[in-house]
Amino acid sequence: MTSKITIIGAGAIGRSWAIVFARAGYDAILWGRDQSRLDQALATIDDQLDWLTEAGIIEGDPQDIRDGIIATTDLGQALDGAVYVQENLPENLGIKREIFLRLDQATDETVPIGSSTSGIPSSRFTEDLAGRARCLAAHPVNPPHLIPVVELAPAPWTEPEITDRVRTLLKAVGQKPVVLKRETPGFLLNRLQGALANEAFRLVAEGYASPEDVDAAIADGLGLRWSFMGPFETLDLNSLDGLDRFARDFADLFYEIGTLQAEPLKWDDGTINHPVTARRAALALDDIAGRQTWRDQRLAATIVAKRKADREIGT
Amino acid sequence: MTSKITIIGAGAIGRSWAIVFARAGYDAILWGRDQSRLDQALATIDDQLDWLTEAGIIEGDPQDIRDGIIATTDLGQALDGAVYVQENLPENLGIKREIFLRLDQATDETVPIGSSTSGIPSSRFTEDLAGRARCLAAHPVNPPHLIPVVELAPAPWTEPEITDRVRTLLKAVGQKPVVLKRETPGFLLNRLQGALANEAFRLVAEGYASPEDVDAAIADGLGLRWSFMGPFETLDLNSLDGLDRFARDFADLFYEIGTLQAEPLKWDDGTINHPVTARRAALALDDIAGRQTWRDQRLAATIVAKRKADREIGT
Repeated sequence: MTSKITIIGAGAIGRSWAIVFARAGYDAILWGRDQSRLDQALATIDDQLDWLTEAGIIEGDPQDIRDGIIATTDLGQALDGAVYVQENLPENLGIKREIFLRLDQATDETVPIGSSTSGIPSSRFTEDLAGRARCLAAHPVNPPHLIPVVELAPAPWTEPEITDRVRTLLKAVGQKPVVLKRETPGFLLNRLQGALANEAFRLVAEGYASPEDVDAAIADGLGLRWSFMGPFETLDLNSLDGLDRFARDFADLFYEIGTLQAEPLKWDDGTINHPVTARRAALALDDIAGRQTWRDQRLAATIVAKRKADREIGT
Repeated sequence: MTSKITIIGAGAIGRSWAIVFARAGYDAILWGRDQSRLDQALATIDDQLDWLTEAGIIEGDPQDIRDGIIATTDLGQALDGAVYVQENLPENLGIKREIFLRLDQATDETVPIGSSTSGIPSSRFTEDLAGRARCLAAHPVNPPHLIPVVELAPAPWTEPEITDRVRTLLKAVGQKPVVLKRETPGFLLNRLQGALANEAFRLVAEGYASPEDVDAAIADGLGLRWSFMGPFETLDLNSLDGLDRFARDFADLFYEIGTLQAEPLKWDDGTINHPVTARRAALALDDIAGRQTWRDQRLAATIVAKRKADREIGT
């Protein structure tokens, strides 16, 4: 019998998770309140699977994955016998509280429940649950069927064994789980993204460079390395004497840079208008949906090339 | 007659610049003080060209590029008739001052002189020169024959026309120049890299995550997008309503994240020991040179895949 994983919510993230689990051989049960929305989700998944196969991301028969995804509006049926539940409702504390209460009541207390929340610590919506020890945040980068990393942010009361079990499961389905030892606003991913984004806004607001040039500094520069090495490995390979030597030689420069970044930045008119104007000059609002398709195609090509390099050059 | 570009210094960056200019059809004159070092540089360039051709980075006959690189210890001969000079001596203020004085005296005052300095504003070593108006920093990401971005940081007295001319030249040879409107410590690239690196060290020092997981959050997550989109375009495509909507919806979260990053970080024992220990467990010091080769091969594969995606999917 195939193991069953339940995905709560049939929006973009839920659909993507369904592909992740079904492609790894699980029955992926997609639950949503509304049948017409579920029908739409399944149609979108069909389209996705076709182009993922064309792009070389999916190597087998996409029909096998399609067959593993079952949609239902019946929550009890969706959860019955599931070994893991991944929640993906809108980013709203009230909604999270309500769904986690229902999930906690309707599942065996040994079943881990992860939330795709990108920013709300799970402690804020699991504290009062009988089964709070099996709940945690499991935040992917959108879309998880293309980007491997998933950050696991356990609440203070999450059982370490649960975090381990979710980590093992996600690794087994081909994701790259990373684990926070404690909760923090924005978790790891948005703290790292925020550091770069805040500095990008700051460099433009302070008149050092145009938004286009800041984007190019990453996309045609630093981002090329970061697509296969993190910041520590990058700095470590800057010198034959490694990170230790590099950090000591450049401590003063990066401390000085830190002092220039000390004032927390408000994303208000004064900071965002120039980048927003530049983006709208580059891309009309009506063209964003098309550009998102471009982004996903570029991501798929990036992943396919990365897998090839992993095999041929090494990880 | 082929135009001539002079490269001062035959270390890793100078050699890489020689490949950049020769591959674009220029005569690249590589100047160094010491003939045996120049011989070694040419041998290394030979090896590089062979594997760049194998990796698909160089599409024509590598011999044509080899033929365009001429090494000499004679500074006058190296500079005679050059249309541009790119300086690459060690990152030391005294050395920069001395070589810029010699370069300024030995070249026609209409010839732009760029320094590969990664952190020393050119105003600190060009102020007293008669020809200071044609000097600026032109800092590449290492190695420039693989990574396109070059940041141009003019001093307050650099003629705008000179900056424009260097930008046009670098664009014509296939690089991606970005321009700082004013000097700042670390320029654009190290301010952006510093923001991410400081936050990486901070997340580990404050006990939120392991160095390995912080690296994975970038290399298997955020860095995949950043290899073809900068931070503004990334955020702009997060919502059908674009950057304006995203920035307003998430202003509070990213301001809160900013407050957690406000204290400038000292790269001292307390912050660097854990990441250094993790890096040395992953890679012995003796293996860094081999890993640098791996990095350059991965970069080459990334660039080849990116060019293919530019053609097939679009930029």
